[in-house]
Order: sequence, then structure tokens, then C-alpha cells
Amino acid sequence: MVPSTADALTAERAKAAFDVAAMNGFLIDEATRQRVAKMEQIMAAEPETFSIRNKYFMSRQEKMEHALKIGRRLVEMSQAGKVTSEDISTADSILDINGPFGLHRVMFIPTLENQATDEQKELFLKPAMRYEILGCYAQTEIGHGSNVQGLETTCTYIPETDEFEVHSPTISACKWWIGSLGVTATHAMVMAQLIVGGKNHGPCPVVVPIRSTADHRPLPGVTVGDLGPKFGFNYMDNGFLMLDHVRVPRVNLLQRYIAVSRDGTVSRPANVDPKVAYGTMVYVRTQIVRTTSQALARAMTVAVRYTSMRRQFAGKADRALPPGEESPVLDYGMVQYRLIPLLAQNYAMYATSQAFYKHYNECMAEMDRGNFSALKELHATACGLKRWTSDVAIRGIDTCRHACGGHGFSEFSGLNEFYGNQYPNIIWEGDNYVLSQQTSRFLLKLVMTLRAGKRVADNQTTQYLRRHLTDGRVAGSPRFAGKSVREMAADPQLQLDVLGYRAAVIASELADKMGAGQTWNRSLVAMQRLSDAHSDYIVASYFRRHLATLPATSPLLPTLNKLAALLFLYVLERNPGDLFRLPTPFTQEQVVEVEEQLAALIADVREQAVPLVDAFGISDMSLNSALGRSDGRVYEDYLQWAMEDPLNREDTGNAIRAEWFQKYYKPVLHAADNKKQAKL
Amino acid sequence: MVPSTADALTAERAKAAFDVAAMNGFLIDEATRQRVAKMEQIMAAEPETFSIRNKYFMSRQEKMEHALKIGRRLVEMSQAGKVTSEDISTADSILDINGPFGLHRVMFIPTLENQATDEQKELFLKPAMRYEILGCYAQTEIGHGSNVQGLETTCTYIPETDEFEVHSPTISACKWWIGSLGVTATHAMVMAQLIVGGKNHGPCPVVVPIRSTADHRPLPGVTVGDLGPKFGFNYMDNGFLMLDHVRVPRVNLLQRYIAVSRDGTVSRPANVDPKVAYGTMVYVRTQIVRTTSQALARAMTVAVRYTSMRRQFAGKADRALPPGEESPVLDYGMVQYRLIPLLAQNYAMYATSQAFYKHYNECMAEMDRGNFSALKELHATACGLKRWTSDVAIRGIDTCRHACGGHGFSEFSGLNEFYGNQYPNIIWEGDNYVLSQQTSRFLLKLVMTLRAGKRVADNQTTQYLRRHLTDGRVAGSPRFAGKSVREMAADPQLQLDVLGYRAAVIASELADKMGAGQTWNRSLVAMQRLSDAHSDYIVASYFRRHLATLPATSPLLPTLNKLAALLFLYVLERNPGDLFRLPTPFTQEQVVEVEEQLAALIADVREQAVPLVDAFGISDMSLNSALGRSDGRVYEDYLQWAMEDPLNREDTGNAIRAEWFQKYYKPVLHAADNKKQAKL
Repeated sequence: MVPSTADALTAERAKAAFDVAAMNGFLIDEATRQRVAKMEQIMAAEPETFSIRNKYFMSRQEKMEHALKIGRRLVEMSQAGKVTSEDISTADSILDINGPFGLHRVMFIPTLENQATDEQKELFLKPAMRYEILGCYAQTEIGHGSNVQGLETTCTYIPETDEFEVHSPTISACKWWIGSLGVTATHAMVMAQLIVGGKNHGPCPVVVPIRSTADHRPLPGVTVGDLGPKFGFNYMDNGFLMLDHVRVPRVNLLQRYIAVSRDGTVSRPANVDPKVAYGTMVYVRTQIVRTTSQALARAMTVAVRYTSMRRQFAGKADRALPPGEESPVLDYGMVQYRLIPLLAQNYAMYATSQAFYKHYNECMAEMDRGNFSALKELHATACGLKRWTSDVAIRGIDTCRHACGGHGFSEFSGLNEFYGNQYPNIIWEGDNYVLSQQTSRFLLKLVMTLRAGKRVADNQTTQYLRRHLTDGRVAGSPRFAGKSVREMAADPQLQLDVLGYRAAVIASELADKMGAGQTWNRSLVAMQRLSDAHSDYIVASYFRRHLATLPATSPLLPTLNKLAALLFLYVLERNPGDLFRLPTPFTQEQVVEVEEQLAALIADVREQAVPLVDAFGISDMSLNSALGRSDGRVYEDYLQWAMEDPLNREDTGNAIRAEWFQKYYKPVLHAADNKKQAKL
Repeated sequence: MVPSTADALTAERAKAAFDVAAMNGFLIDEATRQRVAKMEQIMAAEPETFSIRNKYFMSRQEKMEHALKIGRRLVEMSQAGKVTSEDISTADSILDINGPFGLHRVMFIPTLENQATDEQKELFLKPAMRYEILGCYAQTEIGHGSNVQGLETTCTYIPETDEFEVHSPTISACKWWIGSLGVTATHAMVMAQLIVGGKNHGPCPVVVPIRSTADHRPLPGVTVGDLGPKFGFNYMDNGFLMLDHVRVPRVNLLQRYIAVSRDGTVSRPANVDPKVAYGTMVYVRTQIVRTTSQALARAMTVAVRYTSMRRQFAGKADRALPPGEESPVLDYGMVQYRLIPLLAQNYAMYATSQAFYKHYNECMAEMDRGNFSALKELHATACGLKRWTSDVAIRGIDTCRHACGGHGFSEFSGLNEFYGNQYPNIIWEGDNYVLSQQTSRFLLKLVMTLRAGKRVADNQTTQYLRRHLTDGRVAGSPRFAGKSVREMAADPQLQLDVLGYRAAVIASELADKMGAGQTWNRSLVAMQRLSDAHSDYIVASYFRRHLATLPATSPLLPTLNKLAALLFLYVLERNPGDLFRLPTPFTQEQVVEVEEQLAALIADVREQAVPLVDAFGISDMSLNSALGRSDGRVYEDYLQWAMEDPLNREDTGNAIRAEWFQKYYKPVLHAADNKKQAKL
């Protein structure tokens, strides 16, 4: 008797070398865990509103309406004081449904909080908090994305009437991609070039009413709509907006950081706090590090569970099997190679998310005390981490899907719509390729400063650069010289030394080339390498930092240390070119040893793979996946789900199929009869 | 005045260093070009049936119905003798719509042609040719994919009634993924374990009627349906099928290669032609090489045109600009690095497709003359090429999407649904990771044969292995020793020597390791490397072979030779670890030289990028993309397309939005009023 898929999962769990709940506590803080539990309980109690079992059958319009229904109910609960704004974000994340009121909460309201005067807060923030107006944040234009200074929309002061005229002068000025604009928003926070007395003062935010709060119709001069179907994120009404000389009162320009007086005098307050601009950017990126960690964890949970249960071929996977049984595909070397290092990266992402957020809060507190020295390093590292984590997550979700074979391609795997919804993380908040320039610029400047013999701030980045460079240049032997790969894999400090040295060498070499005349544009490819090498170091370093929060006797540590070593070896194995190009290069034998050590560690960690994904603590409600079910009843549920397709259901499918038969199949099948009849 | 997107494209075209129509002739054979032109003309004349402008707005069910409408019309034309089966496949490919009758034509009918007796051809093939029965090919089961021998469905001979009983004994035996089964097929070609007198003879094809041709209802004992929404391929009704002791006459088992007599005697004809089994597998893979080439070309056309027109930032891209103009993003080094080598790979894929198909036909002709010596090499190389081309295409389409920035994420880019539809190519006909084993096994056997001093057949693979190995082992200096990278980039034979030597070294080293006891399972990661290194050589070699069909004076050659050199340098630049690990390794200086030569060539070829994608000859009808329009009117069309969304259109959208306002927005916006009213 071949064991069932459910039995297979039970057997995997029996091998756990650690306590799964304790591991979950290492990955996720208590407040988050409680918030998730609260919202899952609330939503499970109202399946008529919150069930997402049918989401894969929905058309775009049905999805939007489903999000509206959920969004409305959550606002109701919020107005009744039952849930917080954070609770609602948690619900969105559990359901993987980005609701229509999300941007109102996370972009429109915070902009008012940060940039409105007290008078403006009365006018806009208070009604917004009560949902009496619904906002969006309209920056990107159809022709302008990364370069905010290039925006074309204008906001021109009209002294005659004490108004601003907000206008889209060309088609490329059309606001585009704006979340909650397509159908929902009554007010837009429009970023527009502020023009006063013929002089352009750069992009500033101005509040523009766009739809009537009475009947939701577009106001005069406003052309607005939904921008249509997308690869993912189809619950959200991303929209477009063209403004034709629309007038708003002077008070609608947010005036905390720039003020325009009645007579057209433009002034800026003296003490603009750099924390606001940088702090927001860094904060948003800490959130992307967090959400992409969870996103990858969801996909990993599905893929690891499913490949532990799925069987294929016998006698090829180095493990004795009872006669008649095929091997679980996770026993194959190539499946392990694709999933297990990714699992180590995923653990590192969780740890990094926590350690980095802690660091962010410390820096913010320092800034409150007037110390801004940490700002630049924080920003450069945040850019690098956003790129690194979102890239690993998006590629990783795709890897998980492909590891599930054909079934990964079914929507019931739970991985596909999800993949589309996560995909924007590599594009927005700084496209990943563009962001690498921020990180690299900072590192290159540091190298040049060290070479000039000038002082640099003391932080995690300057620490590793100074540890491995002498006066900004590579000199002498690296600190890990003479060590075997086995020794490196066993010693956290050696691991950080290898990764830090690699990043320092790449930074130094690029500084040499640019010093010798290589242009910025011709250095962009190398900057990707530099940004990633820096982030490889930072992620390993944060992973270690979060590990250090555990007591030395923690029974979690043996497994976690293996994951950290795996993370390290995987970086090395994927970048042999870097190792051979070090001033003191790795030898051919060492690179072979990297592969061997990595393979051994992968095979070892594979035995803990199911408990390790269980420890992410992702519920079946959130997975919404036939393949990833925690009870292992994969094929039963998969077939059942297919039966629920409207095309198959008796109450809906019979009529559709009968109609199709008459219209399309019968004329084909009976063409000869028809011809004969026509002849008679 | 900033030049329009249309002007930008015109300016790019003016730089063409070759004749675009002539280049198109190098890429595509005359018959294919004519077939495409014929079908585009036919379809353009009937927009009410064939227009796909609205496809991105359609729900799954609307897509399926659209495919049915198109499929029915094409069958009508076929029955009227106006179009051939190949014409219909061409139409499907132009529209990127896999119709419900496709599997009937390309799987059901060919199986009957190859494996049915004359009596069976009368019974099944003739009605199938007239579309009086509609077929599908039911092999894969929910629990069984790659391992065909593990199928569970049984086909048991019942001598009492001279019937077979076809049965699904478990849920994991449920037939799954079967194209055209979900709604369409009346007959299934079921692969089932043939059991006669208690003995299992392995999987064999048996024709099982599953739906009535009179009213299309499932026949007794048949549970059948559509398997639901997928990541792509949603025009197709992939289905599931459970058979409960369904009886069919003995004649329904296809008996050309295995026969069961009335008394239950099982016999196999003596002269089974190995060409049939291998030939079909190789043929299907030649088709995947061809379709993935075209698929990537479609994405490249969109991405190259769009990035030539899209502008972002000024003064950073090494090219003087008039004041006020931003740089086209294709002028940035990192965008070039992502797109231009991919363009070279795409050209190599077209050339390989043609040269490999020619080679395939030569081998088939040899086999008709009784010479089967080419079979194994042909099969191993086909596996490697299927993997290589589909992998490059799928990753490449994703790269093209991301290169379009946020707008790549809109369905109107044309890249997203398309990506989903192409995705199965890395999974079906041998999952790409599994396929690498076929190629590697063949290479490893050759190395062992050479080491044993035995004779090997003479073919392109053994030629390069013998050129670089002595008695199956690496010995002495490579043939390119002492050459600079610049010399290599200029000399086709040196390029093939580097690539051939690399593949031979990897094969030899893996043979050593496995000889020393490394198991098959622990060698799977290395086999991916080996399969790809072999394919890198084969693709370069086929590219050269197809180049050799041009006269030496052809004005296309200067550009094509650059693309071939680019392809070569890109392999090297992506695999520095391999270069350093050669027995005579590349030096650090040589690896740096690879990067420099590659960067220079990329910047050079970038100037021809738009003419090079124009030469693919893909029509606007087929692109169906706002970003890739041949006339460059990108933003105008993009905005117009959004306006056509049913949510925005006056005739449909006003009612939907008014309803949503009443149901969802009004209660949120006017919650305070409602509360007040409730209190009154």
C-alpha cells in the first residue's frame, strides 16, 4: 500500500529536530502573531464576506467588487472601533487582496499628517480619518516614473482669484498607475510643478477634488478612470487622471514645507527635517523587506510540502524505499538544490527584516535627538536590501512554482495570482536596477573618502570597508587566508570576512575603473554586482545579529546555524567568478570544496524542510492552495476545487455547455449532415 | 520641442545598416512567411471573429468562448478547403490563442495515423479527419507526470465479452491536464496499463468515447470536466477524466505495435520502427525550439521598440542630447546589458531552429534508408535545445517585461498573458530540469566509450568531444591557448573551440566524479551545467551553419557576425567560474577582457536594435501591444485602450460604477450621516 500524501507529511513532521512554535517565535514578533490570529478569527467568522476560496474563478470586475465588499466591511469595523488600521493591513496581507481604501490609509493620510498645516489638517485630514473623503496619491505620469523632477503636471498660482490652476498639458502628463484612483477616490494628492509668477519651484503636493462625494461623478475638468487589467494586483483600481485647467483654492497646496502667500510670495520654512523625506523612503523599504519575506514563505510552504508528498520514479534518489513506492521529488538533488538554499535565504530575510527594522528605529530615535549621521548609510542599505529581498522573493516564488511541476501552473496551487500580486515589488519604490545605483554611489563615495584619508562615520558599512581595505585600497592577505571552506562554514566571523572582503574588493576595483575614466553609464552593470555583494554581506550580518538574540543554549541554534552556513555557501557557489577574481583568489580546489560542502549541507537541511516551513506559521486560509494544504490532502482537494469551477457546476455549467454545444460544437461535428440536408 | 515617440522610432530606423526585408529572409523561410501573410489577411478581413483587441478584458469563460468562435470558423474554412491544418496552427500562433480543436489535430489524429491498423483508421481516423468525432490525448494523471510507466489507469481485457475495461482505480489515477478534454472532446486516446490474463504489458493507447456526439453529454461511467483556471493557456479547456469500469470493444486498443487477439494472445510486430517513437519526440521538440524563438521575438520587439522611445533623466547616458530632452532608456548600460545579448540569443535561436530542423529531416531521410545511427545524438541534442531555448525564452520574456518598467505590468503591454501562455514550454515535453539528464547521459556514455577505446558514431557531438579530448580525457593545451579574447571574438572557429572545450571538460570531470562513486542523484546539479554547456556549443555551431548559407558577400554578414560574437562573449561573461576552472584556466586579465569586449559590442549592436527587431517581421495584429506598436504611437494607444475597459465605457461602466457607489462607497462616505439619521 503506497502511503497517502497526508501520511507523507506526517512522516516529515516526525523528523523535526526543533520545536516548531519556538522557531515561529524566532521568526515573528509577538504583536504581529497576535494581530494575524485576531484577523484570521474575525474573517473565519464571516465567510460570506471574507472567504477567498472562489477567488481563482473571478473575473477582474468580480475581483474588484469582492475587494470592495471586504474593504467596506473592514472600514465598518474600523468605524466601530473593532479593528485598527494595522489590523486592516494584516487582513489584506492574509487574503492577498489589496483593497480600494488601502492607499487612502497608507499614502493619502500620512502625506497630510506630514505636510499639512494645522488649518489644512482640519480641512482634509479630519474628514479623511472619518472616510468622508477618499484619497489617493497621484505622482507617476504615463511618461514619467523614476525621474520625479521631470513630471509635467502644473500647479500655477492665479493671484487674481487666489487659486491654483492644476493642469495636464500633454498626454504624457496623464497621471498613471495611481492606486485607488480608478473608481474609488474623491480626492487626489496631485504632485505637480508649482509655478508662481512664471517661476517653477519643482514638484509639490496639492489636494484636488476629483469626484463628487454626493454621487461619485467626476467633477468638471476631470478625466478619470481605471487603467485596465494588469499582470496582477487586479483587486486594486489603479487609475489615470487628466486635469483640464482645474481650479482649487490656495489652501489646497500643502504648505508645511513650502508656502505661497496671498501676494504670491513663495517661502520655505528654515528647519526642514531631512528625517521626513528619507525616513519615509526607508520606512517603505523596511515594509517591502518584511512583505517579500512573508510572500516567499508562502510559496516555500506550498512547494516544500508538495514536493515532500509528490512522488516520481523509484530507485534514483539515494534512499531505500519499500517495493512499489516512488521517491518524493524533494529527495532528488536538483529539487533540493532549487528549494533548500532558497529556504535558507527566506530565513535570513525574516531575521534581516527584524534586525533591520530595529536598526531603523534606533536611527530614527537618534535623529529625534538631532543626530543625523546614520541617515545616509541607512538609506543606502535600505535600497540594497529592498532590491535583494524583492529579487530573491520574486525569482523564488517562480522557482517554487516550477518545482511543483505542471500543478504549479494551476491557479489552485495558490502561487500564480500571488506571483502577479507580488511582482510590482521589483519595480515600485525604486526599480531594482535603478536602486543599485543608490547603494553603489554611497559605497564608492566611502572608498574615495577613505582614499583621501578623510574621516568616515562609524557604522556597519564603514566597519567592514575599513576592516578589509587599507586607506581605501586592497592590501595584503585577506583575514580568511589559509582557511579551508569547511572552517569557513563552521565560523560565523570567517563567513562575514569572506563576504565583506568580496564586497570591499568589488567596490575598490570599480572605484579604480571609474577613477581611470569609466563613465557612470558604463559602470551600471558593475554596480548591480556591487550592490548585491554589499547586500549579501548585510543580510548575513543581520541574520547573525538576530541569531544573537537567542540564548546560547537555545535548541533552535543548531538548525539555524546550518541555515546561516548554507546561505553563505550558496553565495559562494553562485559567484565563483568573484572568488577567482579576488586579489588572493580562491583556488580551483576551494571552489570544488564549496560545491561539496554546499551539497552536503543541502541534503542535511532537506530532512528538516517541512518543519522549517511549518514554522513560518502560514494558515491554510492564507495559502489558499490545494498543493500546500497543511493536512496533506492534496489531490482530493485539487479535484474538488476543479469540480467547483462554474463551468463544471450543475447549477451554472450545464447551461453554458449546452449553449456552446449548439453554437460551436454541433456545427463542427455535424457539418456533413448539414451539408447533406442543405443539398436535399 | 521634445520629439514624439513616433519620431524616436523613425530616427532609430534611419540608422539601419542592413536591409530589413533581407534580414527577415535570413530568419524565416519563404513558406512560413507566406502562410503568415495569408492568415493575417484572412483574419484582418473578419474582425468580428478574429479581432483580439478586447482579449485583455475577457474573463476565462469569455476567453474560452472566443477561442471556440475562432476555432469553429477555422474548421469551417478547413472543411471548405480554404485553409490547411498548418494554416490553422499559424493562425493560433499569430493570435496567441490555443483553440479547442488544436489537440485533435496535433495529437489525436497523428497518434491514429502512426499507431492504428487500417481497420482502425476507417473506424476512427476518417471520422476524425471530418471532425465527426473530436479527440484528445489522455496520458498525464493527477499523480503521475514524467514517469509514464507509473500510470495507474488500467485497460483490462475481458475475454467473456471481447472488450476492454478501462478504469481509474484511485484518485491519483485521474487523467489531468489533458488539452481539449475539459469541454470539447467526444473521444479520448487514453494511455492505460494493458492487462491481459492478469499480466501487465505496460502503457498502451486505447480509444474511449467519453461524450455523446449527439448532445455532448458525458457517457455512462465517465466523470469529466475542465480543470479550472491556470497561470496562462486559459483559452484551452484542459480537463480531467475518471473512468469507472468503462467498456470498449477490443478494436479500440490501437494495435499496430501491440495486438491482442480474440483469445487474449498478446503479440508485438517484429519490425517496430524506432523512428516513430524517437522521431515524434524529436519533432515536437523542434517545434518548441521554433515557437519559443518566435515567442521571445515578440517580447523583444515590444521591449526594444518601447525602450527606444521611453525617456528618463538627462545627461547620464553618454550621448549628447538637445536641451530639455531626456535619454531613451535603451541608452542606459544596464538596459542594454539586459536586452542586447538577449537579442543575439534570439537571432541564434532562429538560426538554430532552421539548421536543426534541416538536420532532423536529413536524419529522418537516413532512417528511411535504414540507417539509425544518428538517432541517439539527434534525441540528446533535441532535449538540450528544448531546454536551452525554452529557458532563454521564458526568462527573456520576463526580462523584456521588466525592462518596460511599470508599463510592462499592464496587460496592454502584450507581454503578460503571453508570458503565461508560453510558460508551459519549460514544463511539458520533459521538464527542463529532467531533460538535462537525457543530454548528460548521452555525453557521459560517449566519454566512457572513448575512454574504453571503443568506436563512436561520427556526428557533431562526437566531433567536438574527439577534438578536445584524447581517449576521453583532457590532455595538453586547448586549441585556443595563447589567444586573446579579442582574437576569439573575431574568429568563429576559435569561438567554437572555446565552447566545445568547455563542454568536453565538464563532461570529462563529471565522468571522473561519477567514476569515483558520486551517485546519479548527487550529479544532477552538475548535469544541468553539462547540458547547458553542450547546448551553448550546439547553438553557436548551428548559428554558424545557418550563417554559412549566406553568400560571403552578403551585406547582412557584418551585423550577423557581431551577433554571433556577442552570443559567444555573453556565454563567457555569464560563466566566469567555468573559465577559471578549465585545466588551462582563463586568467583574471582575460576574464576582465571578456567583460570589456562584451560591453563594447553591446553598445555597438544597440544602434541596430530597432531594425533587428523589425526584421522579425511580427505584425501589430500579433503583438497586440500598446508599447510595441510599429508606428510608435505608444501613449496615445495605451490611454485609448484603458478608455475601452468595460469599467470606463459609458455603455457599460456607468451602471457598474453607480451600483458600486450605492452598495459600497456611499455607506463608507456617509457613515456619519447614517449614524445621525439612525439617531433621529
